[in-house]
Amino acid sequence: MRAVTFQAPHEVRVQDVPEPELLDAGDAIVRIEATGVCGSDLHIYHGRVKIEPGFTIGHEYVGTVLAVGDDVHHVQSGDRVLGCFQTACGRCWFCRRGWFHKCDHSRTFGHGAVLGDLQGTQAEQALVPNADLVLRKVPAGMSDEVALFAGDVMGTGYHAIADSGLRAGDVAAVLGLGPVGLCAVQAARAHGAARVVAIDTVPERLAMAESFGALAVHLSEGDPRAVVREATEGRGVDLCVDAVGHPEALDLAVRLTRKCGTVQAVGVYAERCELHMGLVWIKALRLCSGHANVLAHVDPVLAMMSAGLLDPTPLVTHHMGLEEAPEAYAMYDRREAMKIVLQP
Amino acid sequence: MRAVTFQAPHEVRVQDVPEPELLDAGDAIVRIEATGVCGSDLHIYHGRVKIEPGFTIGHEYVGTVLAVGDDVHHVQSGDRVLGCFQTACGRCWFCRRGWFHKCDHSRTFGHGAVLGDLQGTQAEQALVPNADLVLRKVPAGMSDEVALFAGDVMGTGYHAIADSGLRAGDVAAVLGLGPVGLCAVQAARAHGAARVVAIDTVPERLAMAESFGALAVHLSEGDPRAVVREATEGRGVDLCVDAVGHPEALDLAVRLTRKCGTVQAVGVYAERCELHMGLVWIKALRLCSGHANVLAHVDPVLAMMSAGLLDPTPLVTHHMGLEEAPEAYAMYDRREAMKIVLQP
Amino acid sequence: MRAVTFQAPHEVRVQDVPEPELLDAGDAIVRIEATGVCGSDLHIYHGRVKIEPGFTIGHEYVGTVLAVGDDVHHVQSGDRVLGCFQTACGRCWFCRRGWFHKCDHSRTFGHGAVLGDLQGTQAEQALVPNADLVLRKVPAGMSDEVALFAGDVMGTGYHAIADSGLRAGDVAAVLGLGPVGLCAVQAARAHGAARVVAIDTVPERLAMAESFGALAVHLSEGDPRAVVREATEGRGVDLCVDAVGHPEALDLAVRLTRKCGTVQAVGVYAERCELHMGLVWIKALRLCSGHANVLAHVDPVLAMMSAGLLDPTPLVTHHMGLEEAPEAYAMYDRREAMKIVLQP
Amino acid sequence: MRAVTFQAPHEVRVQDVPEPELLDAGDAIVRIEATGVCGSDLHIYHGRVKIEPGFTIGHEYVGTVLAVGDDVHHVQSGDRVLGCFQTACGRCWFCRRGWFHKCDHSRTFGHGAVLGDLQGTQAEQALVPNADLVLRKVPAGMSDEVALFAGDVMGTGYHAIADSGLRAGDVAAVLGLGPVGLCAVQAARAHGAARVVAIDTVPERLAMAESFGALAVHLSEGDPRAVVREATEGRGVDLCVDAVGHPEALDLAVRLTRKCGTVQAVGVYAERCELHMGLVWIKALRLCSGHANVLAHVDPVLAMMSAGLLDPTPLVTHHMGLEEAPEAYAMYDRREAMKIVLQP
Repeated sequence: MRAVTFQAPHEVRVQDVPEPELLDAGDAIVRIEATGVCGSDLHIYHGRVKIEPGFTIGHEYVGTVLAVGDDVHHVQSGDRVLGCFQTACGRCWFCRRGWFHKCDHSRTFGHGAVLGDLQGTQAEQALVPNADLVLRKVPAGMSDEVALFAGDVMGTGYHAIADSGLRAGDVAAVLGLGPVGLCAVQAARAHGAARVVAIDTVPERLAMAESFGALAVHLSEGDPRAVVREATEGRGVDLCVDAVGHPEALDLAVRLTRKCGTVQAVGVYAERCELHMGLVWIKALRLCSGHANVLAHVDPVLAMMSAGLLDPTPLVTHHMGLEEAPEAYAMYDRREAMKIVLQP
Repeated sequence: MRAVTFQAPHEVRVQDVPEPELLDAGDAIVRIEATGVCGSDLHIYHGRVKIEPGFTIGHEYVGTVLAVGDDVHHVQSGDRVLGCFQTACGRCWFCRRGWFHKCDHSRTFGHGAVLGDLQGTQAEQALVPNADLVLRKVPAGMSDEVALFAGDVMGTGYHAIADSGLRAGDVAAVLGLGPVGLCAVQAARAHGAARVVAIDTVPERLAMAESFGALAVHLSEGDPRAVVREATEGRGVDLCVDAVGHPEALDLAVRLTRKCGTVQAVGVYAERCELHMGLVWIKALRLCSGHANVLAHVDPVLAMMSAGLLDPTPLVTHHMGLEEAPEAYAMYDRREAMKIVLQP
Repeated sequence: MRAVTFQAPHEVRVQDVPEPELLDAGDAIVRIEATGVCGSDLHIYHGRVKIEPGFTIGHEYVGTVLAVGDDVHHVQSGDRVLGCFQTACGRCWFCRRGWFHKCDHSRTFGHGAVLGDLQGTQAEQALVPNADLVLRKVPAGMSDEVALFAGDVMGTGYHAIADSGLRAGDVAAVLGLGPVGLCAVQAARAHGAARVVAIDTVPERLAMAESFGALAVHLSEGDPRAVVREATEGRGVDLCVDAVGHPEALDLAVRLTRKCGTVQAVGVYAERCELHMGLVWIKALRLCSGHANVLAHVDPVLAMMSAGLLDPTPLVTHHMGLEEAPEAYAMYDRREAMKIVLQP
Repeated sequence: MRAVTFQAPHEVRVQDVPEPELLDAGDAIVRIEATGVCGSDLHIYHGRVKIEPGFTIGHEYVGTVLAVGDDVHHVQSGDRVLGCFQTACGRCWFCRRGWFHKCDHSRTFGHGAVLGDLQGTQAEQALVPNADLVLRKVPAGMSDEVALFAGDVMGTGYHAIADSGLRAGDVAAVLGLGPVGLCAVQAARAHGAARVVAIDTVPERLAMAESFGALAVHLSEGDPRAVVREATEGRGVDLCVDAVGHPEALDLAVRLTRKCGTVQAVGVYAERCELHMGLVWIKALRLCSGHANVLAHVDPVLAMMSAGLLDPTPLVTHHMGLEEAPEAYAMYDRREAMKIVLQP
């Protein structure tokens, strides 16, 4: 079958690879009908996440179940499904507490040997282990490109808000309006945030946030701190989502947040960085971090997308064929696209 | 000044009463500009809540501060304010934990000696004790009739959802579509409920719930249990709000709710009643009850109404003059009105 | 092998039954070394829970793993293990949220066809499905009779407190000092309850509660309401555990609990009963019910028993051989024993 | 009256100052009978917290009420009381949510103009504003030196655990065994922590932690990470309290804590510092910070000390007269004392 493989930094290729086979009683094989290109794929493309040349990449996917193992009970052949970007064993100490994202045996699609040696989903078919936990049926009437978001980007936007303690009526800020930040804006509104201050430097992204009901502020041309003060009687926001993953974003988040508030850092951090602990301490802040527990959130996210409370449609800027993957990656790398959906 | 007083069951009168005076350093005097007639007023009107003849009734109010005591710091003369239906001391064991609704020294406006001997707000002026806790400035651009709801009915609708553990993406049911039930429908949607099943027997109320985004079901002509099963893959709702206060409603709530779900009984109960504890036990339900902690919720409710996430406007069916109070009560008693706003 | 089977109300028999065999990749076979007789067994003995004659009963157990299926990873042959009284699938909607006790596919040991057709543990061997979720290794140094409690009675005592919102420094009451009530007394103390008021009518049980640090009060000879008032400056307890399962207990629980407090009804209810909803409403109580989520609690319970913070040893009043089961049931039925441990 | 005043770095003096007078209806005057010297006093002593020469210092206190204003209802003249180290207004946005420690109008005793211009308690008398919130009656039978801890150090130890989400059965680590760390060790045990790993470099402190039930580990001579791994099957602790306030402690806390765990930084931070955000992110940690909400915790802390679940007695190493304050500060500065109680 055809699949998008990593070859070298800045080089992906569409090539023939073997079709997947059921290996375990909990496995499913899914025929991929739509698969996204995501910011995490770009880390691989840039060579920052090291994976084996020839490894199939991609981890956002919608498709039809072709086969299931004997121990799969919640989906069956012929079901139209979407899946999560990572698997979980369902039994380890962390899974038993519902922290599927930190499962001791989790595997991430399309991230090479280091993250579980699980071939990616930018291909004609994919093997999905522990299918009962990882897959969900696509609700009737939901398009492929919407469903695609449940297992990664929208799940992350939901996580940023739902796991932060935001209460309806609160004021939130979102730093960084890439797909995750924009989904977080939607999720904040859908959780009842009275105001959402959305901060970025790209006019198109600010405009989209505004169309989602946010108060959009240009990071440098506007004055985020003044806007937040004005929106909160001077207190600061109840919740600030850092969807950037950069020390300057974290610093701004700490400054924008009110006493006893929460900074939710869903943006990726990989290294040491400076933090103004004096401010964190005097403000009595709570700083939460880490990637999203998408397996725990996929049900409510699907329900909300099905009800129209969350709608990623405007984020999908490009549809391309699987064979066009090299061009898709190059275009995404040039920041000319928000979300590219590949169709095998 | 003119005030609406209780005289006898089914008899209220507009009469002259003395103007209020500041008695305590924490007091404020408010010139009433709009005051609502509420379901609780009907309990008095029917003689079920016993109060002294000649006592001024009413507890929903918006107006302008005329005077404040020396120890009032958060509002001042000239401020346009709304207030909560009850006061709280701010210092007792319950207040210190934020349970203002169960304050050991709480007083309820217009409910006679038994609930704190505090004259009501259906009058030209009202004395407001502990004004810093009880009053809030009306946000710019908010109408009297909207603001009025923050201190009672919408606060109760918010409470029904916010204190229930509902998570965005959940499915809720609301039994009883009086003003509180309809506000609960709005609050559920604003908290991200994917579906809200709204149940009543009055077509107009069902239609209004539908216009708020609910799935409206006639209690007897429809099949609430079938609708709930269909909306939840057979599980039952995550949360069921009983906004009725009747054993049959409670019983239905228990039946509609899924295992490990919550029944939130905000409808008034005054007596013993039968409950299917066998079902409660086998389903492992959580049953919460009591009136709303409106003092704790008034800030977020105002923020959400200001942002348009909650909007009680459609509930206001009548505007009348204070002098028309007897007719207003009679009309409300005949169930010809949803919310009547009196303007002194 | 030998097993204790139900025959007819008030008649159990020790007889030969077939040895269990692995049926599923997730199964384990456990050689039973100690198994308890529990209050739930008495429901079967009395004929109130209907099961098939000849069905093996019992659901508290400790032993050694004899064999495991291919898909069991957390225990292996030779491990000394204890198990939970019920199984869970680990994948259904409820399991995915950690509500293992309400798993859609749960099976309870020794409760006949209606609760999952899973033979009981009062036998020389038992088949344990989904062993990775149901079994745990016995911590080093822990006796069989202590370990036995983790999978049922102590798990229920822990649940009564841990899932109730009790905060360290609170005052709790426990109604009914059978094994579950006494474990709840210990759990309350171990969670930092400043006072635990323990209520029953049996002097030996009151004495044992006192030895666990409780303030013991005889239900009729003492004055529970006066004791609670005195212990709480008149407020009532923060949490009242109903470990009885009778309308009079529930009524007393509602009366003993303070405004905004919690009634935790872990005692079994099977039918409709009268509840003073007027009191529940005016006090703004939270009433939680249902059996314990033992699968979720077994890890912390083991850790606390291992650390000596919980210690069921004093509850074990009798050790008997498996062959003596008929006499054990008769003795238990005459309330001459608190916990009988049978050793095959 | 006599009072301990700050003069210059490393110089405090006992001198005559005017007796306090009631200024506000909510005030009380307390005759001080015991007052502690605290680590925060040392910050002043070292000149790091800048206050006016001649300002009375001290903020831990027990005594007898001499007079109260007209609006004080919860204590009265003659009551033996203890107080919290800071005041709160009870009405601002933060107080209304129970975040008394971040009250917009809070004043801290003995910390000069910058923290509210409120004279300290190391004196014969002290003025206590908002006495209903700040003071509590000393429970019968409680000594001065125990009561003293409720309003500051033990309140902080309680906060470190109670506000961290620790569940009974968890494993906690405490870094830094000064008075706050040792109180946190006690609080962790009293909340049901199965194991508490206590880390410091001072043998006497480690021995005291061990006597409180902790597993004591010398920071450099022992191997904290190995001990934690061994105590948690390799996972890391569920909660790590940083009671030091130093980047190296924070770094160790991040390393010792398991995935999805909590780092509770109650130690004082005043500046920027480096944090391994990569670890925080990959582990999905929650980092909480800030000083304790002692006003919210004083009731449960008193209840637990009264019940013997918390007992700071062993921490009191010295009793001295008020006139000996200069020597007390010098001794404390030389780290020759754990807690010095001054008696006017």
